Amino acid sequence: MKAERALQHIHEECGVFGVFAKERAALAPLAYYGLYSLQHRGQESAGIVICDDGVFTAAKGPGLISEVFSVDHLHELGEGNIAVGHVRYATTGSDRAQNAQPLLINHSKGRMALAHNGNLTNSAELRNILEENGSIFHTTTDSEVIAYIIVQERLRCGSTEEAVVRAMGRLEGAYSLVIASPSKLIAARDPFGFRPLCMGQRMDGSIVFASESCSLDAVGAKFIRDIEPGEVVTVSAEGVSSNRSFCGKQQKQLCVFEFIYFSRPDSVIDGENVSLARQRAGAFLAQEHPVDADVVVGVPDSGLDAALGYANASGIPYAIGFTKNKYIGRTFIAPTQGERESGVDIKLNPITPVISGKRVVLIDDSIVRGTTCRRTIRLLRQAGAAEIHMRVSAPPFIAPCYYGTDIDSAEGLIANHHSVEEIARIIGVDSLGYLSIEHARQMAGKAGSVCTACFSGSYPTGVPNAAAKDRFEKRIHES
Amino acid sequence: MKAERALQHIHEECGVFGVFAKERAALAPLAYYGLYSLQHRGQESAGIVICDDGVFTAAKGPGLISEVFSVDHLHELGEGNIAVGHVRYATTGSDRAQNAQPLLINHSKGRMALAHNGNLTNSAELRNILEENGSIFHTTTDSEVIAYIIVQERLRCGSTEEAVVRAMGRLEGAYSLVIASPSKLIAARDPFGFRPLCMGQRMDGSIVFASESCSLDAVGAKFIRDIEPGEVVTVSAEGVSSNRSFCGKQQKQLCVFEFIYFSRPDSVIDGENVSLARQRAGAFLAQEHPVDADVVVGVPDSGLDAALGYANASGIPYAIGFTKNKYIGRTFIAPTQGERESGVDIKLNPITPVISGKRVVLIDDSIVRGTTCRRTIRLLRQAGAAEIHMRVSAPPFIAPCYYGTDIDSAEGLIANHHSVEEIARIIGVDSLGYLSIEHARQMAGKAGSVCTACFSGSYPTGVPNAAAKDRFEKRIHES
Amino acid sequence: MKAERALQHIHEECGVFGVFAKERAALAPLAYYGLYSLQHRGQESAGIVICDDGVFTAAKGPGLISEVFSVDHLHELGEGNIAVGHVRYATTGSDRAQNAQPLLINHSKGRMALAHNGNLTNSAELRNILEENGSIFHTTTDSEVIAYIIVQERLRCGSTEEAVVRAMGRLEGAYSLVIASPSKLIAARDPFGFRPLCMGQRMDGSIVFASESCSLDAVGAKFIRDIEPGEVVTVSAEGVSSNRSFCGKQQKQLCVFEFIYFSRPDSVIDGENVSLARQRAGAFLAQEHPVDADVVVGVPDSGLDAALGYANASGIPYAIGFTKNKYIGRTFIAPTQGERESGVDIKLNPITPVISGKRVVLIDDSIVRGTTCRRTIRLLRQAGAAEIHMRVSAPPFIAPCYYGTDIDSAEGLIANHHSVEEIARIIGVDSLGYLSIEHARQMAGKAGSVCTACFSGSYPTGVPNAAAKDRFEKRIHES
Amino acid sequence: MKAERALQHIHEECGVFGVFAKERAALAPLAYYGLYSLQHRGQESAGIVICDDGVFTAAKGPGLISEVFSVDHLHELGEGNIAVGHVRYATTGSDRAQNAQPLLINHSKGRMALAHNGNLTNSAELRNILEENGSIFHTTTDSEVIAYIIVQERLRCGSTEEAVVRAMGRLEGAYSLVIASPSKLIAARDPFGFRPLCMGQRMDGSIVFASESCSLDAVGAKFIRDIEPGEVVTVSAEGVSSNRSFCGKQQKQLCVFEFIYFSRPDSVIDGENVSLARQRAGAFLAQEHPVDADVVVGVPDSGLDAALGYANASGIPYAIGFTKNKYIGRTFIAPTQGERESGVDIKLNPITPVISGKRVVLIDDSIVRGTTCRRTIRLLRQAGAAEIHMRVSAPPFIAPCYYGTDIDSAEGLIANHHSVEEIARIIGVDSLGYLSIEHARQMAGKAGSVCTACFSGSYPTGVPNAAAKDRFEKRIHES
Repeated sequence: MKAERALQHIHEECGVFGVFAKERAALAPLAYYGLYSLQHRGQESAGIVICDDGVFTAAKGPGLISEVFSVDHLHELGEGNIAVGHVRYATTGSDRAQNAQPLLINHSKGRMALAHNGNLTNSAELRNILEENGSIFHTTTDSEVIAYIIVQERLRCGSTEEAVVRAMGRLEGAYSLVIASPSKLIAARDPFGFRPLCMGQRMDGSIVFASESCSLDAVGAKFIRDIEPGEVVTVSAEGVSSNRSFCGKQQKQLCVFEFIYFSRPDSVIDGENVSLARQRAGAFLAQEHPVDADVVVGVPDSGLDAALGYANASGIPYAIGFTKNKYIGRTFIAPTQGERESGVDIKLNPITPVISGKRVVLIDDSIVRGTTCRRTIRLLRQAGAAEIHMRVSAPPFIAPCYYGTDIDSAEGLIANHHSVEEIARIIGVDSLGYLSIEHARQMAGKAGSVCTACFSGSYPTGVPNAAAKDRFEKRIHES
Repeated sequence: MKAERALQHIHEECGVFGVFAKERAALAPLAYYGLYSLQHRGQESAGIVICDDGVFTAAKGPGLISEVFSVDHLHELGEGNIAVGHVRYATTGSDRAQNAQPLLINHSKGRMALAHNGNLTNSAELRNILEENGSIFHTTTDSEVIAYIIVQERLRCGSTEEAVVRAMGRLEGAYSLVIASPSKLIAARDPFGFRPLCMGQRMDGSIVFASESCSLDAVGAKFIRDIEPGEVVTVSAEGVSSNRSFCGKQQKQLCVFEFIYFSRPDSVIDGENVSLARQRAGAFLAQEHPVDADVVVGVPDSGLDAALGYANASGIPYAIGFTKNKYIGRTFIAPTQGERESGVDIKLNPITPVISGKRVVLIDDSIVRGTTCRRTIRLLRQAGAAEIHMRVSAPPFIAPCYYGTDIDSAEGLIANHHSVEEIARIIGVDSLGYLSIEHARQMAGKAGSVCTACFSGSYPTGVPNAAAKDRFEKRIHES
Repeated sequence: MKAERALQHIHEECGVFGVFAKERAALAPLAYYGLYSLQHRGQESAGIVICDDGVFTAAKGPGLISEVFSVDHLHELGEGNIAVGHVRYATTGSDRAQNAQPLLINHSKGRMALAHNGNLTNSAELRNILEENGSIFHTTTDSEVIAYIIVQERLRCGSTEEAVVRAMGRLEGAYSLVIASPSKLIAARDPFGFRPLCMGQRMDGSIVFASESCSLDAVGAKFIRDIEPGEVVTVSAEGVSSNRSFCGKQQKQLCVFEFIYFSRPDSVIDGENVSLARQRAGAFLAQEHPVDADVVVGVPDSGLDAALGYANASGIPYAIGFTKNKYIGRTFIAPTQGERESGVDIKLNPITPVISGKRVVLIDDSIVRGTTCRRTIRLLRQAGAAEIHMRVSAPPFIAPCYYGTDIDSAEGLIANHHSVEEIARIIGVDSLGYLSIEHARQMAGKAGSVCTACFSGSYPTGVPNAAAKDRFEKRIHES
Repeated sequence: MKAERALQHIHEECGVFGVFAKERAALAPLAYYGLYSLQHRGQESAGIVICDDGVFTAAKGPGLISEVFSVDHLHELGEGNIAVGHVRYATTGSDRAQNAQPLLINHSKGRMALAHNGNLTNSAELRNILEENGSIFHTTTDSEVIAYIIVQERLRCGSTEEAVVRAMGRLEGAYSLVIASPSKLIAARDPFGFRPLCMGQRMDGSIVFASESCSLDAVGAKFIRDIEPGEVVTVSAEGVSSNRSFCGKQQKQLCVFEFIYFSRPDSVIDGENVSLARQRAGAFLAQEHPVDADVVVGVPDSGLDAALGYANASGIPYAIGFTKNKYIGRTFIAPTQGERESGVDIKLNPITPVISGKRVVLIDDSIVRGTTCRRTIRLLRQAGAAEIHMRVSAPPFIAPCYYGTDIDSAEGLIANHHSVEEIARIIGVDSLGYLSIEHARQMAGKAGSVCTACFSGSYPTGVPNAAAKDRFEKRIHES
């Protein structure tokens, strides 16, 4: 199921949120709105944990935030001074409920709620060691491994935040964490800074952490700063403190797909606005792959900014070329193959007079398997496009990602098996141009250096041992 | 509830859909997809009736199409050769289920399924006469009145289509109808043509009727033509026939709000594309209310086309200024007043670097009560807009509509109590300009003459007798 | 679906409830509890209508009362001074929602809510006449016919109660009605009194009508009296009045199955307690069909009283022989045929030491198709019963019922095709004895004369014209 | 919430089920039916785990079995050769989902599914040690402690069954376990045998374990034998083997409440049928507390067998005195205090002619707080009972239970604060008699020695350290 889905579009795995209030208050609605603005980062489960003077209450489940939480649920979560929230893009089926986060665990020194965005690369090795010491695991997530390591370190030191710092010496890979102890809220970001994490403050003094700044905006918090790669920020009644032991140990490797596709256009990540980054990518595309055309059209919603950037840079007029049906959600009954062949297509519809007889520059953010793309192009042809010149605001996607997206295998990626010319022919365009890796790096602007491993296959860290990983997913032992 | 809601935005009341297949087939999925593309016309109830060689099966209920219909429901509707569908924007509460359409009724000559978009202006009078003859009514809709009148006429003539024509002599106001008799599918449009209705054909020869052409596109049907004002089109095993007895009796009065807001940008209505009409309105606004500014921004989604039109006409750059949270649906728990005041706002978020320090031309399609508008403008101010010049792609809305929208009272309409200057001050903009009525008429382009009664207060028909209407809504009689 | 189901057990079609309060109050909970005690009379839809000084509010839907009504629904129904409620055993599928009662209709003189238990025998004829005059029908129920006739009469006279009396001159068959007009609550029972209907009073003076006295008990109302066959009782602010124009026109024909199976053991119907009547039937059986045995066991729940009666009359010890799984409800997933054959059976389980090695007298209230019965007997054999002597507390069921049960065809009834000896062999018992019709009549005790048409095939009224009825259920007309 | 509930009636905490099939098959329906027959042992969550050649799939959630499992869920669980199931009576609220069983855990040697009925008495101590070694806990159940201990032992030995045996040396208190390893199904019962556990076989050779024999009956399995106190039974492809290392180490202490109330009447537990045991208790009561009366009536459902026993022993006629509303389930909206005072009462209704003017012996299985009892007696008085002599088929309940019921505190127990005479006065009866402890022991018949600690306060094991336990439930630590 997962593999199938992955090939339609690359997906982010998670979003995290946390708030520490000066006064006891109904924080669940705040977490609800904060998560609502991170919903695009994960639509398969959602959860909120409230900590009220050390007493933790959790509500989580499979589905969208709107499906998981009713007014009653928010009310039942009650008041507190710390909240942690999570949205997850996860495997389907019966494990979905089990794997929902935040994890709420009991350990020797108390309780802890943990929300994680990213993927460890040494998860299997750590898990192996833990299990050999008698540990049991309820989930198949690496987040549970992180929780264990932190708890182990907690036994050896005097505070949860110190335990988090110590744990960072053992964890490898991508992790942006928001953690609640009975009296503190802790945010931590891996030394590479693969996934974003920022901090803001509300007028009442509450400190808010979130994967993206749009979530701060949603809850009326003013952006303060991004958490640095390798940093651990702790908020308690005593105020905000920071541990930078792991800062600067690695060159930052923020995932470039946060700009290309994952993050919301209104978010500012590591100093760079996503919408501007996308417009910049569009401008680079115009420079790399100019074409004589009548109109520039973006595939909604993620191709619109880049299309505008291309239009402005090229001087070719920008147009709104599609209407997207905004009611398609989880319960939509997708057309069968037969229905599709008889012409049923309701997701996107081209605006015929905008397209008809025109030479169209079509901008999208990626081509994964090519299927969706081919369908979109067929619609433009039916609407009478004279020429279609596709421009992709990312380089060809050829290698698996180990840092928290769902493309964990290179199989099925069209760019892995075909040249650009072949892809152009397969999807049916007159010309096709991808963004260069160099420009992909530059699109991040002020955000600085980015991870482009999925375009190059060269990884900033060691990669997971496939055999070890497999062991935990399909274990069939004699006992 | 209704009044409250009405003041946030004007709403269309309904969408209709019908299909007549040459061969018996599973038509429910087709109706499902057809309605899915009309969902924007009504989100409060939905229904499909299938007619299989004279046996009618109905499924309908409150909610969105995706909520009303499961795979099982579509399956249970079975095969047939005629389908009729409806989406409704209706009153809330316990009556929602009762009033869902299509109406499926039994009468002396058989059964009939009826889907109606629009509002009669002589509904109360007709109902009065019917009741005095012993008729009983299960719903509070004027659609039930239409059904009665058609059935009465059916007793006096030889076919349902003839009965529809005869009924048109007694019905006043707005109605686009799709009706299934045991062996025929009939589409009818009132002589003023207040509401749109078009016809298409699928490759397998099926004839499709729909409120908007986007619905034809969704089911793979090629647009044939619009139903003319006053026309009755009948499809049967013998083919398609038309009765034009009432055509040309009135000057067409297509509701201009179909272009301004109701219809989808990809639809073509009475020969005019909605997106182009909106761009044209934007261009007229640039001409009527020019301003020196840095950027033109539309309020998503309905303000985008007009914004592009304004930008192109004025030469001021077009920008994407907002991110809209696309996960907000029926189950979203809206922030309380207190939460809003503490800064919680998740629907729209401005893209700060696009706005900050800029003189912004802001385009929206209407100002009803002014509240939503004021909030949007406050967001732009917070994002650092230097100046805000609001341009509205419709004239001031001052008079109730009796033809199928939910503004049935002029109370609460801000333009009814305040001058343009006052409104500008209330909502907090540096300048404000509305489209003139003359340009509103011209925006419809090839669609010809339009109804602009809600801007002028001068109606093409008699208006409902308020007292008579009231009688049916709040009757408290002694018996 | 219906036919299939009918053959498992005969089903009552409906229960009705009404309350008239002296003061405005939250009557919905009262109706809820009143209907909860009538749930055994109909489990497929439920509804409540509240009338508040002439303003009617309805809530109804498919399913059990507990499924249809939430706390919110009861709250939304608000306060009022009249409530009418209904539970229905009805056809399945998409019509279930449509046919739910009380019917809430609008007519020339106001609104009316109507709840009906029973079946007309001249429904098709009346409907025919109505339709020929242009009436339209939304449901397929004869209750809608009753509503029409009452409304027609209402136009010709001065009050709803008078209209009900006049309508009774035109209605034939079984009907116990509870009707709310804007200011009155009216209860009416057909001249044969086929279905029960009683009246009680709460301490606060409210008058309550209900199908069975157990419903009065549930809402704290003291039983006053049964409504007489042919009587119309009206409650208004002026007090309680009665019209007996149709009383005594016919000999009472209370359905004997109300005692055998439909009604609750704690109800008193027309002066006779149901539990005592069943015990009496058991005693008659002991007299008619004595046997030498060790233990008397009833099939729970409806066979228990008769088993006790048999035990007491025969001197053979009474035993509790089965445990019934009380969690089996609407969402229970029934075992497949294959699972059943492999021994899966969870509804009833015999208590082995009570049965093993014993000669068992097994008492049940009816044998419809014989299938369920055969399974029960197989269970007893497996539990080691030495002999099984089945005694049925009703005569053989051979003819359809037209007065409000779901056995509307004699097909499939085992007693219609087989002799008692053959049935004994088919179901696998050592002996089988049915109650005689004479004793069935006597079991009703103080309730007086009863209808036993389903045992004799001789009906107290004319029977419905099958052809006419068919016309309304499967009409396929040309138009 | 829990305390409140406990005082209405004592509740069993869980039921367990397991099946090992010779051939791969769809075992989920079998587990579903097996659990359905154990539903009375726990109504707050349910779960099934299927093991298919080492691959485990779980489905569990809060609610009744019928609420947790749909046809789709059963289908998704797929085929396998081992199934484990659980029903749970647990704490309410947001933890319900988290604590649902079977626990499905990953450990060094593979995966394990565990279902547990009972309560450890040294859970807090074990958990303390585990946590101090870095273990983390996801639930607040002692079942997770058991899982940890087994996994720890598994690392030190060669098989899961051996690990279970070794773990038994460390676990104290009550536990009946059903455990699936990738290739085996293991059943274990604590050395005291507090909770029942039995084994059966289906015709196809499958081995079934269940808390009660009624569950074997439900799935067509023949009862083979009870698991002995202290025994570990292992089923694998090689067949069935048993480890009796802990058998006979302790005198059996089967919970006598299994006979008094928890188990189903049709179950046979440790050789004794529950229905017979209850009848025996009734006979003892007749002997201990004779009275001159007209009729013996049991409170349904659990008082019926004892009432029959009392009647048979005393010669006073048995009668069915109440009708119980069988539609009251989880979604029933309970009457408010005010409604109750105005006479609303729908759960039980006396059958008036059975009670009126009679001297009634009323049999119930326990009096916890006295409230429910007082209401039942008031109903009998209203129905005209001349005298009421209450007999309770259990001794006075005065001490908390630590072995798997929900009475973990003696507070609120009426017998703890009042003499029998005082209780009689409080609940309003003419006389009151409890079963003696000696007779409670004898009621278990062939089942042998039973635990009666809740009647005597003398416990067969050490009791939990309240302070230690508290620590895990309300931990508020500094970190």
